Amino acid sequence: MTSDERPKAVRIGLLGRGTVGAAFAELLEERAGAIEAVCGRRPELSGVLTRNEGDFGEIVDGSDVVVELIGGTDPARGYVIDALRAGRPVVTANKQLLAQHGEELFAVAREAGVQLRFEAAVAGVIPIVRVIQEGFAATEISKVFGIVNGTTNFILSEMAATGAAYEDVLVRAKELGYAEADPSDDVNGADAAAKMAILARLAFHTPITLDEVAYEGIEAIQPDDLAYAKELGLSLKLLGVAERRDAGISVRVFPCFLYGGHPLAPVGGPFNAVMVEAPAITEVTMSGPGAGGVQTASAVLGDLLSILSGEAPVHEARERLDVVTDVSSSFYLYLEVADRPGVLAAIARVLGDNGISVKSVVQRGIGDDARLVMVVHECLESRFAAALDEIAELEDLRSAPRSIRVIEEEFV
Amino acid sequence: MTSDERPKAVRIGLLGRGTVGAAFAELLEERAGAIEAVCGRRPELSGVLTRNEGDFGEIVDGSDVVVELIGGTDPARGYVIDALRAGRPVVTANKQLLAQHGEELFAVAREAGVQLRFEAAVAGVIPIVRVIQEGFAATEISKVFGIVNGTTNFILSEMAATGAAYEDVLVRAKELGYAEADPSDDVNGADAAAKMAILARLAFHTPITLDEVAYEGIEAIQPDDLAYAKELGLSLKLLGVAERRDAGISVRVFPCFLYGGHPLAPVGGPFNAVMVEAPAITEVTMSGPGAGGVQTASAVLGDLLSILSGEAPVHEARERLDVVTDVSSSFYLYLEVADRPGVLAAIARVLGDNGISVKSVVQRGIGDDARLVMVVHECLESRFAAALDEIAELEDLRSAPRSIRVIEEEFV
Repeated sequence: MTSDERPKAVRIGLLGRGTVGAAFAELLEERAGAIEAVCGRRPELSGVLTRNEGDFGEIVDGSDVVVELIGGTDPARGYVIDALRAGRPVVTANKQLLAQHGEELFAVAREAGVQLRFEAAVAGVIPIVRVIQEGFAATEISKVFGIVNGTTNFILSEMAATGAAYEDVLVRAKELGYAEADPSDDVNGADAAAKMAILARLAFHTPITLDEVAYEGIEAIQPDDLAYAKELGLSLKLLGVAERRDAGISVRVFPCFLYGGHPLAPVGGPFNAVMVEAPAITEVTMSGPGAGGVQTASAVLGDLLSILSGEAPVHEARERLDVVTDVSSSFYLYLEVADRPGVLAAIARVLGDNGISVKSVVQRGIGDDARLVMVVHECLESRFAAALDEIAELEDLRSAPRSIRVIEEEFV
Repeated sequence: MTSDERPKAVRIGLLGRGTVGAAFAELLEERAGAIEAVCGRRPELSGVLTRNEGDFGEIVDGSDVVVELIGGTDPARGYVIDALRAGRPVVTANKQLLAQHGEELFAVAREAGVQLRFEAAVAGVIPIVRVIQEGFAATEISKVFGIVNGTTNFILSEMAATGAAYEDVLVRAKELGYAEADPSDDVNGADAAAKMAILARLAFHTPITLDEVAYEGIEAIQPDDLAYAKELGLSLKLLGVAERRDAGISVRVFPCFLYGGHPLAPVGGPFNAVMVEAPAITEVTMSGPGAGGVQTASAVLGDLLSILSGEAPVHEARERLDVVTDVSSSFYLYLEVADRPGVLAAIARVLGDNGISVKSVVQRGIGDDARLVMVVHECLESRFAAALDEIAELEDLRSAPRSIRVIEEEFV
């Protein structure tokens, strides 16, 4: 074949060369031959923009596809919009950008008639974006939920296995590289919330942004809770849940107990796992490593290949569903009480008055004090909060009540 | 909008109206609006071919896409080829057709420039075909393995849970609809072998057909094996494994023990689960219900939508890898022996002479007899078979040795 006959290379403009960017550049070179075999054209890096080198305008002009791996919303948002408007398909791993400005970016991409792909923004190597958007595109999804933050899953797994305190395990997670120097967004649930905003948008075809996602983190979890939970057959995960509720949707992140047979219960360490539920598919569970430079780069490369193969872009939002805030949940409740007759009766009365029924109780007396740990059946969260306020006022209570949500479903 | 402005419907020709065909027709009607919202055209059934009604030629002429849900290779093969040659994209759920004639069909589809999609042929609702072919298309996959037959997984789960014999559980599986009246292809591994041929083709880009897949079934599994295995922390699955080995690939189906923490160990009942391993992704596990009319129909509908959205077709086979037959495995070994001193030593010597080392042993003496159950470390299967032949000749042996493969990897 003469050089004239050889199809022209696909020029890739890369924005950002941190951990993921460097891994992507390396993987792109390594897999260039395989990509050429699939789509007929060899990809090559035509330019790289970092803080110190490269000119954005020149890189866009000299590329066929732009890969954004800078992270954060500024200047990434402007770069992505400009690249799309210039007719360049864009691949990004930027969850904050999608969660906060997704609808705007999708609109720009549609207008420009080019693709915007973002598999790497959610759940590491698990191809959940592709599966929801393409595999289950004809399916009426009822629920997408799972473990979408590896840092917190590692911490909770370690706390459960060793009995160590949250602060001590966090130190260990940093040493092992499972937590960043500033882990705030991971441990307070914000990172998971951004990912759930993206998944909810895809699953329910409704615009939803990060500020509509209610989230809680794991900072307040006590080793005691994990120990008592073990007696009840429960394990703790930080769950992201997006589901149809009544006429709307609920999108939330919270620590939650699961019974032993739940498909997400065995997911330990820095792994992610996502479940999709729909009447026509029952349920599908996908799990894999939550992050890592080469894993994220691999997801970016998969998106790039889809663009080169001419696959379909993001579908337009076609629904506008309300976000429901007060939903029903089952709860674990931890109480330190005086070890006196009638205490359990008083608490049970408060729960009963609020229409809340108890599923299981563990009671331990220690000298003057006792610990009362229970799981209550599903009830409106507002009712549970009201009951909790009443319980907090009982004179036999030794400390503030602690509660954690539970998925009640038990498996054999 | 006047009728002139309305885009024309997409006409779907349906071949076969059994359980899956009927479910597909129903689901298509139910989701027609959603599909129109995604791809701009409303799908409608334009003709159905059954044993008693419809004309194949007329159905192809009157359709834009053909959906083949007849099953079996004849006449399905001829119909699919004719439809592709007539320029009609085809969706099929037919694993035998793909496993036996895949390469021929892919060639016809490429020549005709139309798509052939078959997500529903493998692993029920788990979108493994799409994930391997699109999500991981740029990835060098090293191994695809898992539980791809729901009937046998249900039987093994029940045997382990109840201690019942294979024959009794099979009766129960038929009553519950998890096994067909003639379950031969499920329990002897042939069904799983067909699925693994398809997955190996996609993962390794090399032509492979059903007759190159070595398979064993679960008919010979004894309740005893499951009981002893439990003591060793093992659970039994019928695994399909396709992996790179040396310069070639190995594609096999066999019963296999897994340690408790293995991601496939908790997959029980009529579920399927598939793991994909590659250096760049580490591993991804996907699980879900193995079959069911509406679930299979849902996978067919997903493929149809991909065709209507203009996504990419099957990539050409670009490798030609050898199929390796003698590979290394770890084994569980069950022996009934005379309860005499020196028996264990004699067996250990045979294993040692063949370069096989023992990982763990459980010994039980019962009167004159004893049961010796062990797990040996990974060794070439030919070496293990040779050792087994020698052991079978030992005079202290009370019955033929029984062996089952083990995945040695232990998880914490």
